[in-house]
Amino acid sequence: MANNIRVGIVGYGNLGRGVEIAISKNPDLTLAGIFTRRDPKSLTPASKTPVYAYDEMSNFKDDMDVMILCGGSATDLPVMSPEIAGSFNIVDSFDNHSKIPDHFAAVNKAAEESGKVAVISVGWDPGLFSLNRLLGEIVLPQGDTFTFWGEGLSQGHSDAVRRIEGVKKAVQYTVPIEEVLQEAREGKGADLTSAQRHKRVCYVVADEKDQARIEQEIKTMPDYFAPYDTTVNFISEEEFNKNHTKMKHGGVVIRSGKTSEEHKETVEFSLNLDSNPEFTASVLVAYARAAFRLNQEGGKGAKTAFDIPFAYLTPKSHAQILKDLL
Amino acid sequence: MANNIRVGIVGYGNLGRGVEIAISKNPDLTLAGIFTRRDPKSLTPASKTPVYAYDEMSNFKDDMDVMILCGGSATDLPVMSPEIAGSFNIVDSFDNHSKIPDHFAAVNKAAEESGKVAVISVGWDPGLFSLNRLLGEIVLPQGDTFTFWGEGLSQGHSDAVRRIEGVKKAVQYTVPIEEVLQEAREGKGADLTSAQRHKRVCYVVADEKDQARIEQEIKTMPDYFAPYDTTVNFISEEEFNKNHTKMKHGGVVIRSGKTSEEHKETVEFSLNLDSNPEFTASVLVAYARAAFRLNQEGGKGAKTAFDIPFAYLTPKSHAQILKDLL
Repeated sequence: MANNIRVGIVGYGNLGRGVEIAISKNPDLTLAGIFTRRDPKSLTPASKTPVYAYDEMSNFKDDMDVMILCGGSATDLPVMSPEIAGSFNIVDSFDNHSKIPDHFAAVNKAAEESGKVAVISVGWDPGLFSLNRLLGEIVLPQGDTFTFWGEGLSQGHSDAVRRIEGVKKAVQYTVPIEEVLQEAREGKGADLTSAQRHKRVCYVVADEKDQARIEQEIKTMPDYFAPYDTTVNFISEEEFNKNHTKMKHGGVVIRSGKTSEEHKETVEFSLNLDSNPEFTASVLVAYARAAFRLNQEGGKGAKTAFDIPFAYLTPKSHAQILKDLL
Repeated sequence: MANNIRVGIVGYGNLGRGVEIAISKNPDLTLAGIFTRRDPKSLTPASKTPVYAYDEMSNFKDDMDVMILCGGSATDLPVMSPEIAGSFNIVDSFDNHSKIPDHFAAVNKAAEESGKVAVISVGWDPGLFSLNRLLGEIVLPQGDTFTFWGEGLSQGHSDAVRRIEGVKKAVQYTVPIEEVLQEAREGKGADLTSAQRHKRVCYVVADEKDQARIEQEIKTMPDYFAPYDTTVNFISEEEFNKNHTKMKHGGVVIRSGKTSEEHKETVEFSLNLDSNPEFTASVLVAYARAAFRLNQEGGKGAKTAFDIPFAYLTPKSHAQILKDLL
């Protein structure tokens, strides 16, 4: 625990604030700076960490052991991750699944050239769920894998509801359909679509005169809601503020397979999270520790959760984890 | 998938037969030989694999890429693992938790000297459960970890019941107490003992005249049963043969912790297994692939599940797992 790994945060939204909290729970890590594209003076971090402009980052090459990138996957990370990996060890949570191979290639090129380690696409999905999807295939080569998301708040779907005229406040929860989840544990339903596995539940604050129209607009919204079993609940603003402001999420990865004709085996990994950004941040911080250590050992290039042994993620010594946890 | 990794099995009991089956599900692996301390002629493997005497093993140094050791942890593996690691890459399932550090040291010494890779203590506990105990601490540094075993057949406890006079057949299942399991998901009960977390259920075939005495002897057996909520069911031999001959097992690892004062997060990993030895074997086989690959890359010495990235366990290419599973 003698190490004191200096971590920088790039981007200070929900995820960045989660990283700030997560670092405080890990005594071997120190939060050394926050970088933002906003006016640095406009941020007042709870930890009183110094805030710098994004463009000043290159002045801190000797002061940050690893940067945790807390931007979005749509436009921020495709640019930032290769750029920053050109000078620093980095960790990101790039979660646009179909573009991961391209992102890996771009970041790998930058990190190979700079001699730094860049861990991409960590968090819980991609991240811990990916590890469990891979593990399931490994230990049960003959079988089916099922991923369910929720019960959890979907930011994208909540935004879609909020764009409807007359909606004052709204959240959307993605909820696995319980019977389908139970069937997955029996290995049934591998061919079902996401819409057949999940339902969508909305809580909306709106004037009574608008409610029938809003409900209709939500339920018929193509792609987002139309193919799903959707429920719309209209509630008071008080109830909304009391019960629907947490960013809960979670989900389940199930692998069901046979080791022989008569023997079925099920492996299941699940998360039940009060705070999606704080938990994601906690995972990012563990991989920041690993990025630094791998680079100290001479490692470089892009890595994913698949490439990093768990021993690199813990502050404990190898002897201690063998004794206490194996 | 061009690799064809030649695997030897050492010891041909339930676990060895499980490994034989597991290798048949993994096209990149070939079962190249079975080694036994019994008379090789006494074994007739389903796969028709050649059987050799244990003492002939040294003649096969060029014919086996990795040996999977299927002996017991009490007396076999403490001797066999260091001995065989002196000439071959090995994988074992050493599960005497308190002696793992000593076993690691002995095997590591042998494997460092021979330049081979020796993966110890894999299977599901130790193994996959250990990975999840470690992961839980990593992602939720402030929290409690709970391991529950079962519902599953305990070989040791079944043997203890079978030694009672008048018992014709018997099995013992370890069963998590459902309310305690539910409470663990809420982070409660970290101080409970194993006896407070599990109950023991026995199914026994015996003459009616002996039943009252047998039940009394079971329930008062020190350590094994006395501290536990124990139920003894007397059943017919037909019912026993029909319902109680599978080696079912499983369990749950739960980590419950807080990322901040108001946010609780739960991580859970569970297994539900029809065949404990076949599933354990399936895990061993994946680590055999990793042992070979690590050694091909110049690796040597003892390793545990904590030290090996999942990418080494799969026959798929890195590009493929990034695309399909991340």
